[in-house]
Formats: sequence, structure tokens, C-alpha cells
Amino acid sequence: MTTIARDDQCRLLVRCPDGPGIVAAISTFLHENGANIIESNQYTTDAKTGTFFMRIEFHITNLVEKRSTMEADFANLAAAKSMDYRFFYLNELKRTAIFVSKETHCLMELLWEWQGGNLKTDIACVVSNHEDARDVVESLGLPFHYIPANKDIRLQVEAEQIKLMEAYDIDLIVLARYMQILTPNFVERFEDRIINIHHSFLPAFIGARPYERAYDRGVKLVGATAHYVTNDLDEGPIIEQDIERVDHRDQVADMKKIGQKAERRVLARAVKWHLEDRIIVKQNKTIVFG
Amino acid sequence: MTTIARDDQCRLLVRCPDGPGIVAAISTFLHENGANIIESNQYTTDAKTGTFFMRIEFHITNLVEKRSTMEADFANLAAAKSMDYRFFYLNELKRTAIFVSKETHCLMELLWEWQGGNLKTDIACVVSNHEDARDVVESLGLPFHYIPANKDIRLQVEAEQIKLMEAYDIDLIVLARYMQILTPNFVERFEDRIINIHHSFLPAFIGARPYERAYDRGVKLVGATAHYVTNDLDEGPIIEQDIERVDHRDQVADMKKIGQKAERRVLARAVKWHLEDRIIVKQNKTIVFG
Amino acid sequence: MTTIARDDQCRLLVRCPDGPGIVAAISTFLHENGANIIESNQYTTDAKTGTFFMRIEFHITNLVEKRSTMEADFANLAAAKSMDYRFFYLNELKRTAIFVSKETHCLMELLWEWQGGNLKTDIACVVSNHEDARDVVESLGLPFHYIPANKDIRLQVEAEQIKLMEAYDIDLIVLARYMQILTPNFVERFEDRIINIHHSFLPAFIGARPYERAYDRGVKLVGATAHYVTNDLDEGPIIEQDIERVDHRDQVADMKKIGQKAERRVLARAVKWHLEDRIIVKQNKTIVFG
Amino acid sequence: MTTIARDDQCRLLVRCPDGPGIVAAISTFLHENGANIIESNQYTTDAKTGTFFMRIEFHITNLVEKRSTMEADFANLAAAKSMDYRFFYLNELKRTAIFVSKETHCLMELLWEWQGGNLKTDIACVVSNHEDARDVVESLGLPFHYIPANKDIRLQVEAEQIKLMEAYDIDLIVLARYMQILTPNFVERFEDRIINIHHSFLPAFIGARPYERAYDRGVKLVGATAHYVTNDLDEGPIIEQDIERVDHRDQVADMKKIGQKAERRVLARAVKWHLEDRIIVKQNKTIVFG
Repeated sequence: MTTIARDDQCRLLVRCPDGPGIVAAISTFLHENGANIIESNQYTTDAKTGTFFMRIEFHITNLVEKRSTMEADFANLAAAKSMDYRFFYLNELKRTAIFVSKETHCLMELLWEWQGGNLKTDIACVVSNHEDARDVVESLGLPFHYIPANKDIRLQVEAEQIKLMEAYDIDLIVLARYMQILTPNFVERFEDRIINIHHSFLPAFIGARPYERAYDRGVKLVGATAHYVTNDLDEGPIIEQDIERVDHRDQVADMKKIGQKAERRVLARAVKWHLEDRIIVKQNKTIVFG
Repeated sequence: MTTIARDDQCRLLVRCPDGPGIVAAISTFLHENGANIIESNQYTTDAKTGTFFMRIEFHITNLVEKRSTMEADFANLAAAKSMDYRFFYLNELKRTAIFVSKETHCLMELLWEWQGGNLKTDIACVVSNHEDARDVVESLGLPFHYIPANKDIRLQVEAEQIKLMEAYDIDLIVLARYMQILTPNFVERFEDRIINIHHSFLPAFIGARPYERAYDRGVKLVGATAHYVTNDLDEGPIIEQDIERVDHRDQVADMKKIGQKAERRVLARAVKWHLEDRIIVKQNKTIVFG
Repeated sequence: MTTIARDDQCRLLVRCPDGPGIVAAISTFLHENGANIIESNQYTTDAKTGTFFMRIEFHITNLVEKRSTMEADFANLAAAKSMDYRFFYLNELKRTAIFVSKETHCLMELLWEWQGGNLKTDIACVVSNHEDARDVVESLGLPFHYIPANKDIRLQVEAEQIKLMEAYDIDLIVLARYMQILTPNFVERFEDRIINIHHSFLPAFIGARPYERAYDRGVKLVGATAHYVTNDLDEGPIIEQDIERVDHRDQVADMKKIGQKAERRVLARAVKWHLEDRIIVKQNKTIVFG
Repeated sequence: MTTIARDDQCRLLVRCPDGPGIVAAISTFLHENGANIIESNQYTTDAKTGTFFMRIEFHITNLVEKRSTMEADFANLAAAKSMDYRFFYLNELKRTAIFVSKETHCLMELLWEWQGGNLKTDIACVVSNHEDARDVVESLGLPFHYIPANKDIRLQVEAEQIKLMEAYDIDLIVLARYMQILTPNFVERFEDRIINIHHSFLPAFIGARPYERAYDRGVKLVGATAHYVTNDLDEGPIIEQDIERVDHRDQVADMKKIGQKAERRVLARAVKWHLEDRIIVKQNKTIVFG
């Protein structure tokens, strides 16, 4: 591809009742606004009474100037088709906060992928209830906030965290092995914007100590699941899952190390897809436009 | 999905110079013809001077009656945009011939997937230069044609095969471990319609005896490659590849058995994608709309 | 490898309290009996107070003649070391019964691998509560027994099945998608000799309708688990597991088809390992010597 | 496992002509020396005239004191059986030098796995012909040596590198995407002790620019190969290989990023196995005891 300026690039996500002519209407609108489509994906839940989902990535020369007019015009089309929609401009990087506890492998993977240019985001800060990650975070020039946490001071901790999220104007929170449960108050403020990595292939081993329980059950695969956080623990919409093989020689400690490879990979993919606006939450599931 | 009659379903494949408004034009055309889009994929080789490729699967109530009018109307649009295109109607199953030699594992996989409803095609006949596959083929009520072959009688053999392909009105030839080389005359008659399975991850081990050479090299993976046949041996556009692990204990015979698993899987996927019109050949490569 | 007569080949499986000199004692014994070791695996659960497991595959010229002497001599060594052990002679093929219901994909995979020489066993018979598999089974010259079954006539059905197993002198029963629950009476007669394929990555989706529940949960992987049958449904020792990817477009029917690939693969591997005496059951887990 | 002191642990690697009683002789020897076997692997190339390979990991209480006696005694046994052998003591960590050029992803993976305790080695130094890796290396307190290199000054560069390797008493050199060719003089000094990562699934795309050539060929998999360095470029004994999927949308730059995941994984595994003395080179192949 010839390089297109990020300033000129945009993604449009649409959800609406299915019906005739939606793709034609959207693509005609974009054409009339001078857009060139880069990538387009759609999905309909049911051919007759279903819901239509679309993601279009496009570019328009001098988009920055044309943007407000385009949005105003699109509002009319959207109203006519009962669309729920949003434009995402590529020159507006999402602002990400990473929460981590003692184990830093997932944090490290995210920082690495970010440094390598695979995660297009501003990492605004890292928040932890332990000091373990401070050095690596600060060595990259990123703010590190140590906020001790336990279940007795949960509300007070979350109040401080929410203040921080607001101060940094955070779009996405990634729980990169953050071992504290969040309250509904916190979760609801960031609906579909908190990604957690759980260290099992859900719904197996929901809750605490999944590797210990995997060991006890004698499984031959360990896994990891990235999902949006909801108020039902480990029940949120699954974004991505993957597994690694283990065998009878692997003790719990081995399974943890092996599983970390899956955790790293799965979380990095899920965050990348979120940042690229490829994920649409639909009840307790996700549509991921690959 | 609610079930849609196969009679009403169609796929449109388009290739044309990239330019503004193509998606809008096609989707508007389809909308005006009463189409409901089921699935849509597009790809552009380059944002400025490139080629645009599209696959749209749609359905239209009473398509059988409306089909000729639709095609006539689309011809105008296609001419205006310099489109190379084709409509594929789902009620017109492709007619497939499977060529096989002594090893029947790939043939068996195809027959199996076909019986299970995963390969929507008419298997018109099986052609072989050996008798090994006769029983299983005939037990399924399929015609089996034994045509002995060797390099000295190649032209005569191919003349007979071509006559057979014409008699059966064949759309697709699958070389499911058929161990004879085809002449340019044969290949050109079925351009982009002959799929071969090669028993290595090309371009490694082009040509004869790939497992023997893989063994000699001490590789830790063996693979398989499905590709369209061209006149350059094992150099045709690759459709799909996959691998299996081997280790130092595996002799050549073991590697063959292990590799057969990859061969079966890879060929079945490639044939499925071809039958679903998901593959576009672009010079020596394929675009596969997943 | 140069070919060794099956008559001369043997496998010895040993389980005993760990202690010094066990490997030396066994290998010295085998050496003194003229054995040449082909493959050897061992595993100890704990370095101090644990259990020692070993599998040795060896060959002895004219083993058939020497066999009874060897066994008598080994009994002394075994007594001294408190060994639980068994010799498996490769010229005594295990006799296998395959149980199946309506879905034949797992049965087909086993028959296929057996025909290809990958499963060294006598397939003594196929038992089914449906007629679907009869044709394919009988076309291979194998006995097919149709025994209708439902929960109301379970005891009577199992009485008939047990009689059949005894008549055929069955060593291994493979439940290749046999959709009836077995009673404790049946299970206990064939302890560690009934292999079941469950269509999920256990312990996720224990019990009925796993694909439906996987669909409802929105997982991104479906899996399969082969395990020995115990009286706790789907809780027996896991032998092997594997997964396939699915995405948001896959309905329950798609997930079933995709999952079948994992089911076939996983069951075939588990049966192969059992036939090669590679599996040792240790409480609710398996040791698999690869 | 209960923890065993590293001081008490040892690995014995043996290669000798196959013959009766070798395992008995070795295991009896170890037993008489008070050893408890932790893990044991063997492999024979051919049952009659072949070569026997063995790796035994064991522990002996107070091994440090008993070591010289044990070695002296074993020398007799080894002479009798024409053994080529070596004892590796776990309290003597191998000293590793990592060579890298501009791309640091493989270096980073090794440092990471080393920090996580998965690579038991002393990383003695990092050598590079570029400055890119200096900061990360020095932030971990490891020596970083910048030695500019190009083909015109190769001998002088290697003289400096060899001096450095000697000063650090290096056991293993890892070429973690070091883009300079080594001369035979250098290679011979470190026979079977230089591990390189090549960015293709060898023997496909030997030599320069493998991703560019993979792109041109239209492959659907990219891969990576870790191998010992010999004087034949990219022809040394393969230790490990793995692949990642790509599709028609991936340009060369994308394929590089995707392939890096395989490079990281493959190199880390190969180095781990080398450090654990699991690899035996046998002509142009490797035996890897898993």
C-alpha cells in the first residue's frame, strides 16, 4: 500500500436493524463524500429480522476539514435507518491505562508490542497495587501509579483510580493480570472498555486459581481468555482465546509458565483488535471483524 | 440464519481497476435488484493505482426469473467500470472430477467431506491410473474410470481424459495425489480449475520425493500445499498450506503418514474454498476471501 | 530401523514405589534375558516418597519360546520391589469393540486409521443403537450389531452388550460418539478399558449439548476430550484434548462440523496410544509416554 | 517435586555403538554411585548396527564431593563400551553470549525468558554491530559490546569477537538476528555451540531476504528455523521450526512482523533445549530429547 496520512483515515462502525439497501446507502454516502474504502466487513445475525453490523475503514483527502460536515450529513442517514453508529478517526489515538499486580508478563508483552508499533495507542499510565512493575514502566518514560488495594478498601481505591482515569482521559483499561475484583460502579463507568485476561479457557475454571484446578483435573491443555469485564465475574463477552499443551510431567508451576505464553498472546491480540475498532459487543458475545 | 432457498442465492465476483464509487455502484445495483447481501469481501492491491477485487454473496426472491434481466443490466455497469466479473448461482453445482493414483487418503477425505455436506458439488467421476480406489468409489455409486498412464503414452492418455471431462461437463479437476505430470495442452484447457495437493510446504521440496528429502534435511515440520496447476511444476498459485510436527524418531515412512494428515486437511479446505467461489487468482498468487 | 518380527517384540509396564536401583534392576534383568531395548520411558511422581512408572519396549530373539521363563523370573524381581506390572506381547493384538450412535465421523476416522495400519488392533465388532453405520461397517467385512437402547431398557441392553463383549473377548471398548450413559456395572467390568470422546474441552461443558452451550457462551474455541470412562460422567482421566477455532459467524451447526475435526483427531490419538500401551492411569489422571 | 539442590544434579550424555546391555551398564553404574534418576531418554538409530544415544538426568547427595571419583570410575565403563560421553553439572551454568544486529525482538525474548527463570544460563554479554540494543541490555546490568562489522573488515571483527568470547569464557553463542556471515575460522572454534535463528522454514528461502521472497511466492505460512551454524549457510542441523499464518492482505512489512512471533518462539525453545543438554548433533541432524 502507498502510505495514507493517518489524518485522512477513519473507521465507521454501524449497528442497525437489518433491511434492504443499507450497504448501498452507506457506500453511496461515503462515495459522495470523497471516501476511498480501505477495508469493509459486515455481519447480519439473521437474514429476515436480524441486526446488521458493519465496519468500514476509509480515507478522505483533507478529512480533518471535511469531518464535521460529513458527520452532520451522516446523522440524517443514520436517523432514517435507525442506526447506532460511531466514527473513529485514526489521528485520535485511544488513551490506554494498564492495570497490573505482581506478575508482569502480560504488561511486558503489551509494552513490547506497543514499542514495536503493533498497538496504536497512547499508553497514558500504568496502575498497580504492587511496586514490581515500576522500574520497567518508568524506564520507558511512562507514569506509574502505585495504589495499594485489598477488598477492605475497595471503594476508596476505586475512587482514586477513577479520578486518575478521568485525569488521563482514559478510553481503554486493560487488566493485564490485575488480581483485584472491580465493583459494579467501576465497571459501569467503562462499559465495553475494560479488557481482562483470564488464565483459563473459559468457561472452564472460572474464578480463582485456575492453574491449580487445571492441574487437579489432569487437563492436557491450558488456556487463556481475553474478555470485556462485566459485573458477572469471568462471564463477560469473550474476545479471544488460545491454548498451550501440557503433559503429565508439568506441575502447577510449569503449567503457569506455559500458560503465560497463551496469556500474553491472547491479551495482545484482543487489545490490538479493540484499538483497531474491530470488536462489536452484542449481548454477551463479540463480533470480531478480522 | 433462517434458511434461504439455494435457488435464490448467488455470488458475484468482480475484478476491476480501483477507483471511487465501485462499492457504492455495485451495492446500489444489487439493492435496486432486490438483493439482500449475505456476505461481502473486498480487497484492493494498492490505494492509488491498484486493482479492486470483490466477492458478494446475496439472495433475491425468485432469482431464477429475474436472473437474465439482472445480468443484462449489470453488463452496463461492468462496462462503465471496466469490470471483469462473473455471477455464480448456488443452484448450479460445480461438477468435479477427482484424479488419484495409488494413495487414496486425499480422495477419501474429499468423499467424506462431500458426504457430510461440507463440499457442495456434484462429484461427476473419479479418474485413476490404478485400480486401488475403484471399490470405495463405486460403493458410493460414483463412476470410476481406470486409465493407465505413464510418460510414454501421455498424449493419448490425456486425449482420453479430456474427452471424459467434456462428456461429464467438468468444472473442477482435483488432483488428489495423482502422480502424473500434465501437459500444457491439458493445463491450459482448465486454467485456474485444476487444484493439486503437493506433499511439502512449498517452495521447500519442489518436485519428486519431498518426504525423502525432508527426512534427509532433518526438518522438524512436514507440510502440504494446495495450489492451482500451471505449466511450471509446483509453481502455481498457492491456495492453502499447513504443517505437522515430526521428530528425530520419525523415519521416511512415519513422515509420510504424519504428512498425510496435513495433505488431507489442506486439500479439503482448498477445494471447499474453490467451490464457494472464495478464491481469486491474481498472477501467481491467490486472494482467498475467508 | 531394520524390521523386527512382531513375535519377538514386547512391552513392559511397571508401577512401583520409587527407590534406588529400579531402572538398574529392570534393565539388567532385560539384558540378562537377551533383550534389546527399543524405547524406554519413565516418570516419578516425587523424588523422595513417590511412585515410579516405566514403559520399556524391547525385543528378544525367539521371544515366544523364552516368554514363560522370562515372566517367571521377573515375578521374583517384581515381588522384591513391590511392582505392579504387565507384559504386553505385540503378536497378541488387542481386540476392540467400537460403540457408535447416529454420528459416524469418529467411527469412520478409526476405521480409516485402522485400514492405513496406524491402529494395530483387531476390530472385533461395531455395536450401535442405530442402523446408520451398518453399511460402511459391513462393507469392510466387520460384524455390526444393532442393539436399540434407551434409558428405560438400559440393564437389558447392557446385559446383551456384555454377553457380546465376552463372546468377542474384547480388550478395549471405544465410545465413538455413543450417546447412551453406561451403568456402574458395565463400567466396572472394563475399568480403564473404555475410551470415550466428549465433544468439548473438559471440564468446560460437561454433560449434554456442549456445542449449544459453547455457542451460547460465545467461545472462540471448540474442543474435544478423550478420556477413560468412570462412573462420574465426563470426569474420567483425560487422555488427550484438542481444539478448533470458531468465530461469530458460526452457528451451532457450524460449530458441530468444525468440532468434529477435533473429535476425530483426538479420539484417534487416544486409541492409538492405548493400543501401544503408552497410557498409565494414575488416580484421575493419565501418564502418556509419548 | 521436592526441591533438589542444583549442586547435587547432573546430566550424562552418551553416544556409542549400539549393543546389548548398555542401559543396564549405565543404570547399574549410576545406582552403585548413589544416583536417583530424574529423567532418562534414549534413541537408537538402527536396531542392529546403529548408534545408541542417551541422556540421563540424575541427582546424588553430596555430588560435589563424589564427582571426581564418579568420573574416574565411569571412564572405565566408557572405554569398554567405546562411549563418547560428557557429564554436565547443573551448578555450572553455561555462559552465553548473544549476538544481535538492529532488530531486537529475538534478543528481547531471550532476556525475558532468562529473567523469568526459563533459561538457566549466565548471559555473559551481548555483542552487536549496532547500538540499538545497548539501552535495554545495560538497563539489565549486562555488558554490551558494540563492534561495528561489515564484510570488508570481517577477520578483524572476528578476531575482536573471539578475544571477547575467550575473556568471557563463553560456552554458547546465540545469533539472535545477527546479520553478519561468520567465517569458517570462527565457526570451527564453536562447533555445535552457535545457534542461529533463520527467518524462514528452511530449506525454503535459504539466504537473504526470505520474507520478500515468501511474499513474491505467495505463501500462506511464514516460518522460522533455529539451527546450529556450520560453514554451509543455513544448512546446519535444524533444532526447531515453527510457522505463522499470513494471507493475501499481508505485505512484506506485515509478514515480517507476523514472522517475528515465530522467530522469538523458535529461538527461545532451541536455546532452552541446548542449555538443558537435550540436543545431540548427529551429522546434519539433531536428536532432541523432549
